[in-house]
Amino acid sequence: MSHADRILMGPGPGNPYPEVIEAFGRPVLGHLDPDFIALLDETNDRLRQVFRTDNPLTFPVSATGSAGMEATFVNVLGPGDTVVVGVNGAFGERMCDVAARCGAEVVRVEAPWGAAINPQALLEAHPNPKVIAIVHAETSTGVRNDIEPLGVDKGDALLLVDCVTSLGGIPLEIDGWGVDLAYSGTQKCLGVPPGLSPVTVSQAAIDRFVDRSQSWYLDFAMIANYVTGGGARAYHHTAPISMIYGLHAGLGVLLEEGLENSQARHQACGDQLQDGLVKRGFELFAQEGHRLPELTSVVVPEDRLPDGLDEAGVRRRLLDEFGIEIGGGLGPVAGQVWRIGCMGHTARPRNVTMLLGALDEILG
Amino acid sequence: MSHADRILMGPGPGNPYPEVIEAFGRPVLGHLDPDFIALLDETNDRLRQVFRTDNPLTFPVSATGSAGMEATFVNVLGPGDTVVVGVNGAFGERMCDVAARCGAEVVRVEAPWGAAINPQALLEAHPNPKVIAIVHAETSTGVRNDIEPLGVDKGDALLLVDCVTSLGGIPLEIDGWGVDLAYSGTQKCLGVPPGLSPVTVSQAAIDRFVDRSQSWYLDFAMIANYVTGGGARAYHHTAPISMIYGLHAGLGVLLEEGLENSQARHQACGDQLQDGLVKRGFELFAQEGHRLPELTSVVVPEDRLPDGLDEAGVRRRLLDEFGIEIGGGLGPVAGQVWRIGCMGHTARPRNVTMLLGALDEILG
Repeated sequence: MSHADRILMGPGPGNPYPEVIEAFGRPVLGHLDPDFIALLDETNDRLRQVFRTDNPLTFPVSATGSAGMEATFVNVLGPGDTVVVGVNGAFGERMCDVAARCGAEVVRVEAPWGAAINPQALLEAHPNPKVIAIVHAETSTGVRNDIEPLGVDKGDALLLVDCVTSLGGIPLEIDGWGVDLAYSGTQKCLGVPPGLSPVTVSQAAIDRFVDRSQSWYLDFAMIANYVTGGGARAYHHTAPISMIYGLHAGLGVLLEEGLENSQARHQACGDQLQDGLVKRGFELFAQEGHRLPELTSVVVPEDRLPDGLDEAGVRRRLLDEFGIEIGGGLGPVAGQVWRIGCMGHTARPRNVTMLLGALDEILG
Repeated sequence: MSHADRILMGPGPGNPYPEVIEAFGRPVLGHLDPDFIALLDETNDRLRQVFRTDNPLTFPVSATGSAGMEATFVNVLGPGDTVVVGVNGAFGERMCDVAARCGAEVVRVEAPWGAAINPQALLEAHPNPKVIAIVHAETSTGVRNDIEPLGVDKGDALLLVDCVTSLGGIPLEIDGWGVDLAYSGTQKCLGVPPGLSPVTVSQAAIDRFVDRSQSWYLDFAMIANYVTGGGARAYHHTAPISMIYGLHAGLGVLLEEGLENSQARHQACGDQLQDGLVKRGFELFAQEGHRLPELTSVVVPEDRLPDGLDEAGVRRRLLDEFGIEIGGGLGPVAGQVWRIGCMGHTARPRNVTMLLGALDEILG
């Protein structure tokens, strides 16, 4: 079967760096092979650099980003625990669902979709939560929530942050901001296909792990014996070898470019895109001052859609005629917004130029 | 960093088919791209052929084989449910751990490591369990447990089978044997690197799903809206695109060879290996009549180890001098057995010849 070649400008996956695909071609090693262990260790070192942390327990969970969410929750939350969750989009909602399945009491602090969470409201929502959880970059709305004030005033709470769409794309300081648990995905600003969820866990979080996680697969205490075992590594589950080659290579590209340079490139593409959209009379959806450069949400211009074409039809024409993927809205904003990503290898000015040109051709 | 090229004759991963690695190089598509959905549908059709089932709910879980185990358990077991588990190795033990974390009552039916489970004992262990669970091919011992008698007399129980090391390598009939839930791994007899866990679920199992799985990521009711949604696919989590390309390609190789031909090739390699080991005076560990061809367990010949070399030292010499990986023992048989796999692309007579020759050179 023939295989399309897309420019992936949706909310993720983005296009992977060519070096990542090349790494997929490496001969498969066993998960206990000393050469593989060395590569895994180096991968985790690279993750620490990108997360800006010294946490020894930093590694890729063997599943996609949503499993990283579940992993961070199930290791610290059980019946009787309280978690305060910031909800201003689909991924904050998902956090509440995951936390409730742990048996935890969930205290929701909401903001409208498209607006940012007020950190003070999150801090004041409960006198003594075990966990405060928030999404750094809301993939459903293109909004950045502020993390730093939460770390300053979190008290005894553990701070748990979704970094799926932020890691590598915008400034993030795990240790500097006092984040205790964080997870990400490979398919966003790291420029790697989906399949792994990098996580990092502080000693304070380890000290407050539940006695036995309800998940065997995601049990950090057991996995730690494999990923941070020093010379002797205890088998837990078979690591996804080729995906880890890809992550290792993608992090290599990122660190060679430089973390700040990569963030600057994401910022420049986001600025170019958002300026271009505003110049064309489009309305940006996310609250000013909290707009992500790597993921732009824009209100669908109903009055400018060609006759007979709805918003999904425009996206379909972008896909069929230009090979460009952009995303639609989720949940309450389905049909009302487009989500346009510039992440990882996709974050190149030429891609923004191409998309704006394609929109001009379709919308006239 | 240079990259070793191994012949993977451990308990998995085996070497992948070259076509699989080639497929990893395909351009990444979005998880809602119609071209990707078509490829996923075809992958699931291929899985149904290999599982020998018509179950609509047949798909690869987005994580490795152990997550497939957890997924099948968490969707049908909760507090108050009873599960009977056959335990004759590490993976039966793991089933008990996973089931207990669901809050289920676990009834163990044991056989010594190296022996097979008596199906009658499993059937008589509890008057009315919700689930009877067993490992088809015990990767820790090389033993095949009989499944067919369980399906015949299971009564109202759901039959849950670990097919990680059996799928593609030995006869398996999901529908013919009355299996309700099964999971596998890609890195064994399917000839694909680790990273996915193919599962299949019967209507009887769907009818008895728990109200809300304790796992969000592995919630089959939610995932079904994506993998079996017909024209409209509801986003649940981002599928691991490139891994699914690999699985699609590996299943293509398998089905082009023919399922029975692939099983015959695994059988021939297992026979060649086991005959060769016995001729050399080695003692096979698994019970006669229940030996897996794709995974051979052999007692470490202590009296034939060269001076100063323990069993791990022999494995290390195989790795360093010949680039061949074999596995050691797990748990109670650590240090006492070797586990030698001939799975997927590794299951070639030349590899058996090479390994036997290498053992001759090292052991004299």
